[in-house]
Amino acid sequence: MSIHPSAIVSSDAQIGANVSIGPFTVVHAGARIGADTSIGSHCEIALPSAVGEGAPLLIGDGSLIRSHSIFYEASSFGPGLVTGHRVTVRERTRAGRQLQIGTLSDIQGHCEMGECVRLHSNVHIGQASRVGNFVWIFPYVVLTNDPHPPSSVTRGVTIEDFAAIATMSVVLPGVCIGQGALVGAHSSVTRDVEPGTVVVGAPARRVCLTSEIKLKDGTGRPAYPWRHHFNRGYPEDVVKAWLAEADRLGFEGSAISNKA
Amino acid sequence: MSIHPSAIVSSDAQIGANVSIGPFTVVHAGARIGADTSIGSHCEIALPSAVGEGAPLLIGDGSLIRSHSIFYEASSFGPGLVTGHRVTVRERTRAGRQLQIGTLSDIQGHCEMGECVRLHSNVHIGQASRVGNFVWIFPYVVLTNDPHPPSSVTRGVTIEDFAAIATMSVVLPGVCIGQGALVGAHSSVTRDVEPGTVVVGAPARRVCLTSEIKLKDGTGRPAYPWRHHFNRGYPEDVVKAWLAEADRLGFEGSAISNKA
Amino acid sequence: MSIHPSAIVSSDAQIGANVSIGPFTVVHAGARIGADTSIGSHCEIALPSAVGEGAPLLIGDGSLIRSHSIFYEASSFGPGLVTGHRVTVRERTRAGRQLQIGTLSDIQGHCEMGECVRLHSNVHIGQASRVGNFVWIFPYVVLTNDPHPPSSVTRGVTIEDFAAIATMSVVLPGVCIGQGALVGAHSSVTRDVEPGTVVVGAPARRVCLTSEIKLKDGTGRPAYPWRHHFNRGYPEDVVKAWLAEADRLGFEGSAISNKA
Repeated sequence: MSIHPSAIVSSDAQIGANVSIGPFTVVHAGARIGADTSIGSHCEIALPSAVGEGAPLLIGDGSLIRSHSIFYEASSFGPGLVTGHRVTVRERTRAGRQLQIGTLSDIQGHCEMGECVRLHSNVHIGQASRVGNFVWIFPYVVLTNDPHPPSSVTRGVTIEDFAAIATMSVVLPGVCIGQGALVGAHSSVTRDVEPGTVVVGAPARRVCLTSEIKLKDGTGRPAYPWRHHFNRGYPEDVVKAWLAEADRLGFEGSAISNKA
Repeated sequence: MSIHPSAIVSSDAQIGANVSIGPFTVVHAGARIGADTSIGSHCEIALPSAVGEGAPLLIGDGSLIRSHSIFYEASSFGPGLVTGHRVTVRERTRAGRQLQIGTLSDIQGHCEMGECVRLHSNVHIGQASRVGNFVWIFPYVVLTNDPHPPSSVTRGVTIEDFAAIATMSVVLPGVCIGQGALVGAHSSVTRDVEPGTVVVGAPARRVCLTSEIKLKDGTGRPAYPWRHHFNRGYPEDVVKAWLAEADRLGFEGSAISNKA
Repeated sequence: MSIHPSAIVSSDAQIGANVSIGPFTVVHAGARIGADTSIGSHCEIALPSAVGEGAPLLIGDGSLIRSHSIFYEASSFGPGLVTGHRVTVRERTRAGRQLQIGTLSDIQGHCEMGECVRLHSNVHIGQASRVGNFVWIFPYVVLTNDPHPPSSVTRGVTIEDFAAIATMSVVLPGVCIGQGALVGAHSSVTRDVEPGTVVVGAPARRVCLTSEIKLKDGTGRPAYPWRHHFNRGYPEDVVKAWLAEADRLGFEGSAISNKA
């Protein structure tokens, strides 16, 4: 355990083995930090609030929380959480293993995420959002929840497994993005998106099937499902299954991506 | 008064009764902090600057400034200011009581806001903006001011009372959003918007009257004016007036919203 | 040299003459900070990383890094760098003199910028971007790089000299914005933009030549090239050349802009 002398860590916080905590970071009583986790400088962890009602913040083993990040109490994250800098995560957020949250992203709480979800920089996840497994959400995407703002009506967004939402898109309240669908950049998604389709525009309209998009890597292979050519950083068991699936389908998916 | 020992507070700052200041926060000489105000960790308050010319930063009584926020000198806020985390507020901003500024929002200064204005997360208020009373601005909205960037011409935006601007919209320089109007999500507002109308799109076009939108709460009541069904957190005198107005108009507005 | 006693500065960092470092800032071993530079509070400078491989962070003389900013190791900046608050700059970013990076902007690294580039607040520069000299990028603009996200294919964006990209626009992978072009607000740029033209919309379409836009300052002078009427804060040698050019062309460019 390596806690910087300038960090302020509550004696009631539960800190696992081999955890490091950076300078000027504040860890409140409700923190339950898994082993082998690293927390950067200038963070505030397990911030108490009326909404949280004293419930703990659970961070799984082997996580990495980068500097200037803020986590409220009363959320839980599986092992292998990785964040960028200055993320904000409010109460009642639940996520499976290996969630990635990019720099400046803002999770408003009261939401659920599956395993291996990846949020890029500056993503805004409204309350009541339900995000499946292996979803990608790119910079400046907003998941909304109020059909006639401001009001007390909350209609969360649903994003199904393997879907990808490209940068600067808004998903309107109650909309469901189907499995493996792709929302093009700068779109406003006002209606449900069928699985495996591509939509783009404001309002977003169906353009084609994802299977019609070719990889621009000179091979002409299909770009979707992306798991057949892109698997960097995913768990070993997952990658193995994806490669087997690609092999079965005759796709040359064995080349492991090396992109950051 | 409860100032964390790690906070750095200038002896020239004026701090009211019962103020709390969190760890690693810096409060400069120009701060005038009202009673019963709470300031979180890692903030910088009353930051001096050439533009500020040493004028004070006035924070009204009973305010709450969350962690990692930055306020420059030479602005003033009425009582009951509430901010999210990491807000930035530049010089020469003036606002009435109970302004709310969401996480990551960036107020560029030289602007005016009425009472009970609510900015959600990640809102960008350009210089020379004039925002009325009871206005709502949602995430990733930008109020611009330069008609042909870059230039020295500044044409601020005007937002009239009770107007609401939904997420990811841009209001172009010099545009006026009329009283009680609604700008739909992901819009680019290039022309003035008439009071009580709904516009959407890029460029934004008139869709209907706000009075034609029904609440999706099973009652079929009108969703606008929103003050007839949504009043959580507003001052008692204001809520009383709104409920009386709703009663007069036969609207079942007495159900107080309980949405966070 | 004025290092706040609460700052944590590695003894291996190289700090020039007359540098000031604010409270609660962390400076790592790889920092090479030029003379007469000022670094605000709560920053993290020369953050080590696997990508950086221990290469230094070079900050030119006379720079100003505002509070809560984060620079990784393995980048270099010419003299006169100025940042807003909470900027994030990843590894392998190279920029010429007098780069300005607005509050909350996020530079993902592996990119190049010429001299006197100005990024306003909350700009997102994707990896592999190439930005020329005297470029302006306004709030909430995203430069992308992946033509079919997620994938390992990277097609960076190119922005040529003097181009300006207005707020809330997305530039799609591999697109080139030509010299002196203007992208209107809230646009999605899917194809190359010819030099000296104005495009707007999603997808962005050509509207006119920049030379057809008149300054809204009562003079009716052309608004572009902007360097003929706007030169605040640029280096003396540059301004002199711009004014001479304007004179040659008969433009009354001698009035120095005084806008912030």
